[in-house]
Amino acid sequence: MSIKIVSTGKYLPENMVSNESLEKDSNLECGYIFKRTGIKNRFYTNDETVDILAIKSVENMLKKNKSIDIHDIDLIVSASTSYDSLMPSISFKIQKHFKIENCICLDIMAGCSGYINALSVAQKYILSGSVKKALVIGVECLSKNKYKDIKSKMLFGDGAGCTLIEYSKISKIYFEKIESYEDENGILTCTDNHVFNMNGKEIYKFAVTKTVENIDKILKESNINKSEICYIIPHQSNIKILNKIYQKTNMRVFSNIENYANTFCASIPIALNDMLENKVIKDKDKIILLGYGGGLNLGSILMEV
Amino acid sequence: MSIKIVSTGKYLPENMVSNESLEKDSNLECGYIFKRTGIKNRFYTNDETVDILAIKSVENMLKKNKSIDIHDIDLIVSASTSYDSLMPSISFKIQKHFKIENCICLDIMAGCSGYINALSVAQKYILSGSVKKALVIGVECLSKNKYKDIKSKMLFGDGAGCTLIEYSKISKIYFEKIESYEDENGILTCTDNHVFNMNGKEIYKFAVTKTVENIDKILKESNINKSEICYIIPHQSNIKILNKIYQKTNMRVFSNIENYANTFCASIPIALNDMLENKVIKDKDKIILLGYGGGLNLGSILMEV
Repeated sequence: MSIKIVSTGKYLPENMVSNESLEKDSNLECGYIFKRTGIKNRFYTNDETVDILAIKSVENMLKKNKSIDIHDIDLIVSASTSYDSLMPSISFKIQKHFKIENCICLDIMAGCSGYINALSVAQKYILSGSVKKALVIGVECLSKNKYKDIKSKMLFGDGAGCTLIEYSKISKIYFEKIESYEDENGILTCTDNHVFNMNGKEIYKFAVTKTVENIDKILKESNINKSEICYIIPHQSNIKILNKIYQKTNMRVFSNIENYANTFCASIPIALNDMLENKVIKDKDKIILLGYGGGLNLGSILMEV
Repeated sequence: MSIKIVSTGKYLPENMVSNESLEKDSNLECGYIFKRTGIKNRFYTNDETVDILAIKSVENMLKKNKSIDIHDIDLIVSASTSYDSLMPSISFKIQKHFKIENCICLDIMAGCSGYINALSVAQKYILSGSVKKALVIGVECLSKNKYKDIKSKMLFGDGAGCTLIEYSKISKIYFEKIESYEDENGILTCTDNHVFNMNGKEIYKFAVTKTVENIDKILKESNINKSEICYIIPHQSNIKILNKIYQKTNMRVFSNIENYANTFCASIPIALNDMLENKVIKDKDKIILLGYGGGLNLGSILMEV
C-alpha cells in the first residue's frame, strides 16, 4: 500500500528580516551573513503563535486547492521544537480551528528533522488502513528562542509547511531510513524555556557525514540507483552543508535557504511546497527527503511524487 | 500481524507525599483529599528530571527481566506533558543513556492520554515490519507544574512506566479507537512554562461520557462482547470518574490511584505493570486500555495480554 501527496501549503509571517538590518544592528560587516550561510532573508512573527503559523499554512493549501474537504482528514501529525503549549499541542489546535471531527491528533518532538518522523508516522497509519487522509505539519517559531549571540540567531527563521497525504491506488515507491544518534556533548539543544545552544562545528561534521552515509543506505536498501533520484530535498540548515552533500553524493540537492533561513521542522515541507508549486518536481519523480539535526536525529524518505 | 507485551517497568521517586502532610500545610480538614479523589499518596521528585524517571523505569524493567537485551530495541516512543527539554526529547535521552544503536527515537505530545498514542504509533511501526522491538514510555513530573491552588496540586504525582512490545508470532487481538475533541473553552491546559489550568467540572463531564461512548464503539467495531474483557485499565485521574465508568459500563475497572495519584501519561503503563506483576491479568486476557484528558484527547486500545 502506498501514499501520495495530495497537496501542500506554506506560511511565512509578514515581518521579513534582511541580513542588512541584522548586520547593522550587530556591527557586522556588510555581506557577513550571506557569505557564511547562504541566507539572504528570514521571516519573524510579531504576535502570531506557533499554532497560528501552522493553521495559516493549512489555509493557504485550502485556498490553492479548492477540492480539498478539510473535514475528510482523519489524522493530524505536527512536528516542532517551538511548542508554547504542552497541552493542547499544535495538532489539537489545528483540529479545533477547522472543527474537524473524527480525527486523531498528535504532536511529534524529534529535533530539527521532526517532519520526517511525522511523515513516517502518518505513512504508517495510512499503511495500516486505520486512516485515509493525513495532514502532516512542520512548524517553528525560532525567533522567540534565546540565543547566546546574533551569530546563532541570524541562522534561523519562522514558518510553517503542511503536506496532505492519502492512500494511493497506484503503487508508489516509499522507503525510509530513520536513525537516531547519541548527542554525547549536547551539540544542539533547546530547553523548555527556549534557551538554545549549538556547537556549529560539531553539527557541521555530523551533517556532512551521517547524511551522506544515510543516503547510501537508503539507496542500497531500496535498490534504486542514484541516477533515478530527481532531487535530494534536505533540511535547509546552511548552504555550506548542502553544498558538501552535493559534492559528496553528486546528486541534485535542492536549496531555498536564501529565502527563509533555517526553519527546522518547517524547512522540508516548505521546500516540498515550493518545488511542487514551481514545477521543479512533478508526478512520478523520485525524491529523497533528508532530515538531520538535534536529537541527534537523522532520517531520509525516498518517495515518488 | 500482532503485537505482544514482552515486559513492563515502573519508577516512582523516593519522596512519598501523604494527604496528611498536604492537608496540614494547607489548613484542609483531615480526610478532605481522600474523600474527594480516592488518592492516599503521591510521589514527588526532588532533583530527578523527567528523563531520569523514564530511564529508571526502564532500568527496573531490565532488573526484573534479565533476558531482555536493551540493544535489540529499534524504536523508542515516549509520551509526556512534562518536557523540560524540547531538544533532545526524552526518547533520545533514553537512547543515549543505554547507548542503543540502530534505533528510531520520537516523543509524542497528545495530552494526558499520550501513552495510548505512543503505543498506537509503536504498534503501527511493528505492523509495518520496519521495527521489531519497541519501548513505549509514559512519564511525568507534574509536581513541577505551577498550579493555582493546592486543590489542583493534590491530584497529581510524578512517575514513569514503560512497556516493551514486539511482533507476536501467535495471533493476538488488537483494536484501537483514538478520537480527538475540541477543547473549546481550554478546560485542561499547560503552557511551555508549566502553568497548569483545569476546569474540574468540565473535565469530569467529558471523562464520564465520551469514555463510555468510546468503549461502546471499540466493542462494536471489534465485535467483542464486554463479557470477554477482563479489565478496563483507565487513565487514573480520580476515583469518582473511575467509579462512574464502572457504573455505566458494568465492566471491571482497575484502579491504583490511591497509591500514586494522577500521573497523566504514566498512569496506564504503571497500572499495566502493577497488574502484570501482581498477576491480576495474565497471558491471553483481553483488556481495554483507556486514555482521556487534555487536548481534548480520548483513546482506547483493546488488546490481548
